[in-house]
Amino acid sequence: MRIALSADHAGFEMKDQLADWLRADGHEVIDLGTNGPESVDYPRFGAFLADVLADGRADRGITVCGSGIGVAIAANRNPACRCAQVSEPLSASLARHHNDANAIALGARLIGIEMAKACVTAFLTSDFLGGRHQRRVDQLANPSEREPA
Amino acid sequence: MRIALSADHAGFEMKDQLADWLRADGHEVIDLGTNGPESVDYPRFGAFLADVLADGRADRGITVCGSGIGVAIAANRNPACRCAQVSEPLSASLARHHNDANAIALGARLIGIEMAKACVTAFLTSDFLGGRHQRRVDQLANPSEREPA
Repeated sequence: MRIALSADHAGFEMKDQLADWLRADGHEVIDLGTNGPESVDYPRFGAFLADVLADGRADRGITVCGSGIGVAIAANRNPACRCAQVSEPLSASLARHHNDANAIALGARLIGIEMAKACVTAFLTSDFLGGRHQRRVDQLANPSEREPA
Repeated sequence: MRIALSADHAGFEMKDQLADWLRADGHEVIDLGTNGPESVDYPRFGAFLADVLADGRADRGITVCGSGIGVAIAANRNPACRCAQVSEPLSASLARHHNDANAIALGARLIGIEMAKACVTAFLTSDFLGGRHQRRVDQLANPSEREPA
């Protein structure tokens, strides 16, 4: 699988560890940075992940910041990205089953590397259930096609 | 505070419990539905929450589905919404501190009502730190103003 990874300064070490692990498992890794501890703005790196999912350069994406929250918000600004912020593997599986998630966001200051790997494994090995869930996924791609609140 | 709540069929009971609890605590509650167990599409209810945050009808928002993932993705399609999917109060506090989150998403099939209340309490009582975080929050409101990946 072609897997894109991005992170801010709080997440780049976890991102690099996951990249090495995924490469060793035979995946093609697209590293979108950041690649050092210098402070960067997380919205750019969340958005970069969505870019490569939107244009087909990557099949799946993983983005990391301190909490996972900021990069997830940024990635989900792009209607082509369905990014789930997860801290345990059940949520990563549910994000695949119900939401056809093509990205997950991890918090490097909240979970450790083994929990992160368990989340990634669940994300990469769980299938979308389709059916009634497909209609809802289609709605996520067309957020303006509904009545206002 | 004017607090909007929305949910799909998996989340409406937790949403109603939180609404009663918030009213008893003196908050003004804006209930955006759904209000029964009939199956509905979560993207609409996540988006409704973003609508009322965007137009100023509500100060904060809470949205609930089975996992919290789908409604969070939907809410974050709107650049005026910064919705954090949380399952424990530390993430809810960090979402306020760093991301100036104006919404949280909860998973009614993943956490219980007392954990949900702890998340809401952290969300409502934690302050945004400003400073360098403000620049990043501004970027979340203008997702297209950056270079592509």
